[in-house]
This record gives sequence, structure tokens and C-alpha cells, in this order.
Amino acid sequence: LAQIAAARENTRYLPGIKLHEAIRFEDDDAKAFHSAELLVCAIPTQFIRPVLGRLKPHLAPGVPVVSVSKGIEIETLKRPSEVIQELFGERPIAALSGPSIASELARQLPATMVTAAADAGGSGEALARRIQELFTTPYLRVYRNDDLLGVELAGALKNVVAIAAGILDGMRAGNNAKAALLSRGLVEMTRLGVAMGALPETFTGLAGLGDLVTTCVSPEGRNRSFGERIGRGEKPADVLASIPGVVEGMPTCRSVVSLARQMHINMPISEGLHAVLFEGRDVRGQLADLMTRELKSE
Amino acid sequence: LAQIAAARENTRYLPGIKLHEAIRFEDDDAKAFHSAELLVCAIPTQFIRPVLGRLKPHLAPGVPVVSVSKGIEIETLKRPSEVIQELFGERPIAALSGPSIASELARQLPATMVTAAADAGGSGEALARRIQELFTTPYLRVYRNDDLLGVELAGALKNVVAIAAGILDGMRAGNNAKAALLSRGLVEMTRLGVAMGALPETFTGLAGLGDLVTTCVSPEGRNRSFGERIGRGEKPADVLASIPGVVEGMPTCRSVVSLARQMHINMPISEGLHAVLFEGRDVRGQLADLMTRELKSE
Repeated sequence: LAQIAAARENTRYLPGIKLHEAIRFEDDDAKAFHSAELLVCAIPTQFIRPVLGRLKPHLAPGVPVVSVSKGIEIETLKRPSEVIQELFGERPIAALSGPSIASELARQLPATMVTAAADAGGSGEALARRIQELFTTPYLRVYRNDDLLGVELAGALKNVVAIAAGILDGMRAGNNAKAALLSRGLVEMTRLGVAMGALPETFTGLAGLGDLVTTCVSPEGRNRSFGERIGRGEKPADVLASIPGVVEGMPTCRSVVSLARQMHINMPISEGLHAVLFEGRDVRGQLADLMTRELKSE
Repeated sequence: LAQIAAARENTRYLPGIKLHEAIRFEDDDAKAFHSAELLVCAIPTQFIRPVLGRLKPHLAPGVPVVSVSKGIEIETLKRPSEVIQELFGERPIAALSGPSIASELARQLPATMVTAAADAGGSGEALARRIQELFTTPYLRVYRNDDLLGVELAGALKNVVAIAAGILDGMRAGNNAKAALLSRGLVEMTRLGVAMGALPETFTGLAGLGDLVTTCVSPEGRNRSFGERIGRGEKPADVLASIPGVVEGMPTCRSVVSLARQMHINMPISEGLHAVLFEGRDVRGQLADLMTRELKSE
């Protein structure tokens, strides 16, 4: 934090980007939260619980929280907004998601996002509008969506498909195969989401399809890059050991497959990826299985 | 044709690919059609009518036709299967579409396609199953779909979005912008399709989303490449004059915008592209307009 404050630059994750002069850096929890009007929670999903547990005493009641994390907590299968609610109690909570690779946003390239608040029909409406107005700039257009569950699920599930997309890249399988993966992947993401109570439109919107496209296409995405090395023949455990931080799609794949099995939902791509990541199965065998299943309707 | 027959290679469009020994090359219309059991119609949309007019006397009644053309006839706004029906009369007709860039198929990279027959609930079912069985190989998986109208419309409309995707590439707008274009583009493709009687699921399936992804991402696509040069600052007319053959998305954009205006359907991306292609408007101005419209729900 001291280094970022001194250089006014995050040299590890956003090299070359000067941070705006209005941004202050604070390592004292109490001071950081003093007079906060809105909290942006950008903690990797599996670390939200411990970090917010520490911060809990410092956040005033009623201060709204907007989550930008994309994942599902492994042990509890909860979404980021649910974990925040549990720790920070009743207050306005929303998610901000969509196709928004950080390096492009930092260079002010044009992008869109989508925000959804809890209690969307009621008190959440005001928070969603406030987030929309706060984050919209001439290069970033923020849409509202009423389906918080769907927005969060879509953001988590797309990381599973992104690992599979990376595997295809590593195998040099081509764009026809990747397009098929995205289409069929979106179908099974939607199937699970709808069974859990989300709206299908959310999955064909910016938080679903939009984010899926960026994540599966951008060279810099962590989940896609992780998959690419597996597609080239490396073992998942070896790849994981060689990179710092979290590959969100990996725990998400485990959660998704448990959910799908519990709920009897057919998710052949997630199952195939699960077999490669956790059951030691070969990637080529899994791809061949997907291509030679019984012929059927779309 | 003589050159291809001699080299057993299409050196212009598929250099380096040996054509299968079972393929025969025939420039005599009557001989070519003698004992034909299935006709694959792979003529660019605007040329289907004159070519089939010439071939008409040689095709036996009842021989089924499968169309792989993606476009809408400019003067009549008809789909390829409708033009085929008009010229060849009552017979089983189907379309075969989806994310299938030829150079990848020729290298036997894994791909999926989708087939839909006219009269899908009735007599078309047998033709769709036959096409599915004929074209499926270990590397190509063919799905059936009941919505011929939707499959053909999606295949035509995606070329309009592909030109816009190329423009973003030419402007170096990034993957967030491209993902947003694909999502919002699919929304307006679906809006027009559904208004014309197609099923929304077709647009989120392989013939819609799937083909849209390949076409907007693959460097070799004609529509995307055409857009890329416009995005770099060239005038549409100059780009057109410098390349051989047809850019299907260009006439399709004109047809789509007439249809949208007639039917009072909001299609901001197609309208924006129309302004650039046919009304001399600047690409940067159009992008800025799209980014600064009134804030709203998805």
C-alpha cells in the first residue's frame, strides 16, 4: 500500500497507469471507513468473509455496499452479496458486474457494466440508480438489472467456461470450437441459474454473455490463461503451484458440479472440466466425449 | 474449376488443403445434377436467383436442397430457403448454419453446426435427421433446430454486427467494448427476429450467438475485416472497391434497417452502422452516441 501511495501506481496489476489524485490510500481500518458513503467490496470471493470480519466494527450502519467480486464461497455455496449481508447486516447491497477487464477500463477504453441491487423492486431501486450515476462516465455505460441473483451467478459461472475456453486455446482447437463452447456453456449456465431462481434474460445480457465473451477472448484473463496451460499439456496442480493468487473458476467448478448433481441438472461442459481438474482425466478424451455424444436437438 | 480439378485444391480460398478423392468436379449442369440425391446450395445470397434459374431444368423433382448461404436478398428481403423454394418449387428444403469458419473445418478442427428444415414438425423432420447424420463426423457435431426462419435470420443478421465488431477492432476499442457490442447486438438481432416470427432460443443458440462469436472474433472473416479497415479510417466505398466479391453484411444492413423502420423496432447498433456505411457519418461520432444515450435498464 505504501508503495502504491508513493508511486501513485499499482505496478503489479496495472503498470503504467497513474492513479487519480482524488484516490487516497489508508491502512488504518477505522480511518479508511470514517465518513464512508459507499463501500466497494473488491475482495476475491474466498477471502470476503475473513476480511469483512476484521472490518465489521468500523462500518457505520446503513452505509451501502457494492460488490464487484465474481465467485461462490466454497464451503457455503453463497454469493458475495449474501456473505456481505451476513457479516455487515441489513443495509443496501448491490453488485456491479459485466465485461470489464481492468487494464482496458484503466486506459479509458469504451465499456459497459450492469448493476443489480438486493430488493430491486423496493428499496434497492435507489441504490441501483445511484451506482449507475456514480460509475457512468463518457467511456463507461452502466445499465440497471433487477436480478441480483442472476447477475452474481452469471459472473461466477462464466469463470468455469473461461477455463474450458483456455483449454481449447491451448489445444489450438480454433474459433469454431470456442464459439460452440460459449454457446453451449451459456446454455448450461442459464439452466443452473434458472433452476436456482435467476432470470434467463440476465444470462443473455451483459453480466452473462457479455462477460463470458470478454473472459473467454481476452489474453490476460487469469481463468483463461490457467486453462490454456492445461490445454498445452501441463497438469492442473503444477499450473496452480506456479501462479500467485486465486483462479476463481477452479473452486467455482467444484461448487457448480455439486449444485448440478444435487439438483439433477445436465451440465456436460462443467462435468467435463471437473473430470480434468479434479479427477485426473485427459483433456483430449473429454473433448472427444463432448463431440461424440448422441445426436440431438439444440 | 479445371484448375481445382487438376490440383485437387482450391488455391484461392483453401490453400494447402487437399480435397477428398470422392469429390468430383463437373462444369456440365446436366451431368452435375444427374442422379443427385441431395443438393448443397452454397451460392452467395445475392446470386442464388440467377444461378438457380440456370440450373432449374436439371434438378429432378423431390431432390432435397440444403442451403448454407447467410444473407437476405436485397430487392425482395427474402431468405435463401424462400428463394430456393420459389425457383425449385415444392421439395424438402433445409438450412445448415452455425459457427463454421471454412479454413478451420477444412483442417478438421472441432466444430458444431445446426440444421433446420422447412415444415419442421412434419415432413421436414426426416430431412433434418438425414442432414444431421450425413454431415456429422468425429470433429463436426450437427444439432437439429425446428426454427428455419430464426436460423436463417440469425445467420444473416450476425454479419451486420460483425462489421461493427471489425470497426471496434480497427479503432482498437478493446474486448470490453466488443463484448458489449456482441451482447447488445444479439439483443437487437433477437428483437427483429422475434417480431418476424422466429424463436428467441434460436438467437442464443449456435446459429445466433455461436456464429456471432466466431464471425466477430476470427481474423479471417470478410465482414469483420471490412469493418476493421473502416475503423482505421478508410471510407466504406474505398474499402469495397479494393476487395473482390461480396461483403454480405453490407446489403443486409440496408435490409435490416428498412425492416426495423417499417416495423418500428429499436436497433441502435444497426442504425449506427447504417449511418456510417450509407449516410457518410463518422465512426467515432456514432460510438460516442451509443455510449452516451440515456441511462436505462438492460
